[in-house]
Amino acid sequence: MDIEEFRRFGHAVIDWVADYRGQTRLGELPVMARVAPGGVKRELPVGPPPQPEPFEAVLQDLTRIILPACTHSQDPRFFGYFPSVSSLAAVLGDYVATGLAQLGINWQASPALTELEDVTISWLRQMLGLSAAWSGAFQDTATTGTLVALLSARERATSYGASRGGLQESARPLVVYASSQSHESVGKAVRLAGIGSNNLRLVPVDDRYAMRTDVLEEMIRTDRARGLQPCAVVATTGSAETTALDPVADIAAITCAQGLWLHVDAAMAGSAMILPECRWMWAGVEKADSIVFNPHKWLGASFDCSVYWVRDAEHLLRVMSANSSYLHTRSDSRVKSYRDWGIPLSRPHRAVKVWFLVREQGVSGLQARIRRDIGHAQWLAEQVDATSGWRRMAPSPLQTVCVRHEPPGLNESALDTHTLAWVCRINESGRAYLTPARLDGRWMVRIAFGSEATEHHHVAALWSLMRDEASWHH
Amino acid sequence: MDIEEFRRFGHAVIDWVADYRGQTRLGELPVMARVAPGGVKRELPVGPPPQPEPFEAVLQDLTRIILPACTHSQDPRFFGYFPSVSSLAAVLGDYVATGLAQLGINWQASPALTELEDVTISWLRQMLGLSAAWSGAFQDTATTGTLVALLSARERATSYGASRGGLQESARPLVVYASSQSHESVGKAVRLAGIGSNNLRLVPVDDRYAMRTDVLEEMIRTDRARGLQPCAVVATTGSAETTALDPVADIAAITCAQGLWLHVDAAMAGSAMILPECRWMWAGVEKADSIVFNPHKWLGASFDCSVYWVRDAEHLLRVMSANSSYLHTRSDSRVKSYRDWGIPLSRPHRAVKVWFLVREQGVSGLQARIRRDIGHAQWLAEQVDATSGWRRMAPSPLQTVCVRHEPPGLNESALDTHTLAWVCRINESGRAYLTPARLDGRWMVRIAFGSEATEHHHVAALWSLMRDEASWHH
Repeated sequence: MDIEEFRRFGHAVIDWVADYRGQTRLGELPVMARVAPGGVKRELPVGPPPQPEPFEAVLQDLTRIILPACTHSQDPRFFGYFPSVSSLAAVLGDYVATGLAQLGINWQASPALTELEDVTISWLRQMLGLSAAWSGAFQDTATTGTLVALLSARERATSYGASRGGLQESARPLVVYASSQSHESVGKAVRLAGIGSNNLRLVPVDDRYAMRTDVLEEMIRTDRARGLQPCAVVATTGSAETTALDPVADIAAITCAQGLWLHVDAAMAGSAMILPECRWMWAGVEKADSIVFNPHKWLGASFDCSVYWVRDAEHLLRVMSANSSYLHTRSDSRVKSYRDWGIPLSRPHRAVKVWFLVREQGVSGLQARIRRDIGHAQWLAEQVDATSGWRRMAPSPLQTVCVRHEPPGLNESALDTHTLAWVCRINESGRAYLTPARLDGRWMVRIAFGSEATEHHHVAALWSLMRDEASWHH
Repeated sequence: MDIEEFRRFGHAVIDWVADYRGQTRLGELPVMARVAPGGVKRELPVGPPPQPEPFEAVLQDLTRIILPACTHSQDPRFFGYFPSVSSLAAVLGDYVATGLAQLGINWQASPALTELEDVTISWLRQMLGLSAAWSGAFQDTATTGTLVALLSARERATSYGASRGGLQESARPLVVYASSQSHESVGKAVRLAGIGSNNLRLVPVDDRYAMRTDVLEEMIRTDRARGLQPCAVVATTGSAETTALDPVADIAAITCAQGLWLHVDAAMAGSAMILPECRWMWAGVEKADSIVFNPHKWLGASFDCSVYWVRDAEHLLRVMSANSSYLHTRSDSRVKSYRDWGIPLSRPHRAVKVWFLVREQGVSGLQARIRRDIGHAQWLAEQVDATSGWRRMAPSPLQTVCVRHEPPGLNESALDTHTLAWVCRINESGRAYLTPARLDGRWMVRIAFGSEATEHHHVAALWSLMRDEASWHH
């Protein structure tokens, strides 16, 4: 493809994406993909094309094969999983970064994008109200950030055992603590870090699904008495199922007193910390050792874009840095080498999309949208609370409302069936998309607001649809 | 930003990228960024903008601040590090994937892109001549792929110890083997996996910088005798410094006989395996347990895009899968959930760019370019070999030529100074970009071909420039 073809097809791609985004913003397509397993694969050749194909044919297949098999997470009627907002200014930032195709391996290979990362990471820190004690870097996802946190905790607890015999020489097994509502990425990180599932303690939660610090303290005491070595606590600000808020200050008091690593998983709720009125939710965060936050969720930086902040950058570099002569032709303490701030050595340039997003929206624009979404959740929560037969299953401090429709006379098992049935009817209608989830062993439905295009009338229409579909059998 | 603004600014971004790529293709800009440390940061505000800014201003800053501080890895005169080819068709594929903004968390959230990944991973497998026994998934980079490999090896060797007490309960410490020329990602993975640097054996190499399997066998024997547990061998096909080729078949004979995991790091050379005449380079690969290969290097799929293949997918899923109820509303063995194939749970949709690239180029088009680049290396190698005062430091089986200019009468230390001086003069001239590297403790210069726009006249001009700059002092 030569430059003029790129220009021509590039304009076609922009128009294709603009048309698609226009359709999803207007909610014209069924939200959930209508395709059976294997339906896409069947349309595609089993082997690669030996000869070049006309690029027009490739673009046509987008519309014919790919589009009908997409679930539209940018649709204003998408309330599934969690917001995965891909703001249009961020999209263009990503286009620029991909077009520039900088080799993201050290400062010299791209001074521009290394220093832009430095600046945008600092902007985000200031937006969230964090002190200048924090420094950080972009990562792909919060799962990776949490893994990096537990690796860092492991290395602090073992005085850099990885540079010697690793965990294999540890005398006292390390133990990690997180609430029973913590994200599955914590369990995965504990396993991958070699600490092992048996050394993860899932601390019980209170009636707001927040970690019980009295039990945490008791667990730590018991583990010490058994000769184990408590190592780290993961506190969650905005849990995956219900956006529950662990009491960070109380947990920090324990981790500081006991010398444990405190990692705050604010993947979801971090975006709300741009609102001063929400910062009580993670009060105490300044005493943590690390924080993970995903601008690719609610803030609007398109996927992938997670931030990992630490208080002790030197420690992170010592745990993560590798070394190879051909990468270090310029050694200069005035520049950062972000390859030493995470697992991969080469990295994409996520700073551009954050730069574009924050400048195009301004902090005030982003704040207004986040406030609007919290308002949507509050409105729906009020309707649910005021309507007989409906029950809210957890507090709704952020943008997620957890509900159940409970017709009289159904036992728990029948309620599960009923819940899955009405949410399934909604999803298959194409008129909205919701995700059911288990809470305390029973099925409930999460309504996660945050899609950029969702306005009040979409929320009102959803509530009407929920009542219609839930009462269908009754 | 509304849809019509996106359309307008999107067209502007396409034109900006097209102009940039045109300039880099023509080699109009100095290849290496001309900016001092801190030079970009100084141009950017310390804090985020409180109010929205006009998007025109953002685009202007690209040209004013970002562009002069970029090193142009797509320039035909870029011979640094390794090729990081970002083919224009792949760029457009990425634009589509970013524009679609699918939530890459499971099949249901994007049937289209899950199944497209399935298909393109299979296309790449066939292109490299691998049997149908392999299945795989996209990852960000080879560093991550190698970490996943060693985690998988660790779990096989400990019978899934991560689900119990982890490495902390292992009776016999695990040991990993790789050549002294293996990539730094191996050492990093050994540390992160908790195995520990002391349990990594760097096997010496022969005069072609290939692993000495006689020493490997001896090391394994010694470790067993000491009560340690040999666990995995990493074989490199195309090492970072010299593109050296470990003898995969000989290593596989040992790993199969001894029950060790064999991981093949073909991050760089994997692209050349689309040429049947190159497949001798990793003969024996079918007996490996895992392979990593980066289409984002030489093949042209823009960054990031690495493939990790395994023979035993069930094992990988058991090591990597996490579980959370709200993610599994559709459980169907006919669909893949790629979140269980690597570390992050949400994933970008890299399949689109591979699909675009392979269709636009055809296998034959990609083969022609890879053959051309190997030809460039062979031509330069011949010139170096035929010119007195110049020496080739290693075999050049692929697209990298390692050289030194050795004027008479210089000792090793003076030669190092001379080498760094002439390569520095070239880089600062802006007329080409090369990276020096240490080999056997001394500095040499790597010339890595692979930039899509590099034609013979660029190679001839480089050789002339090298001779001029190296003889500058003599």
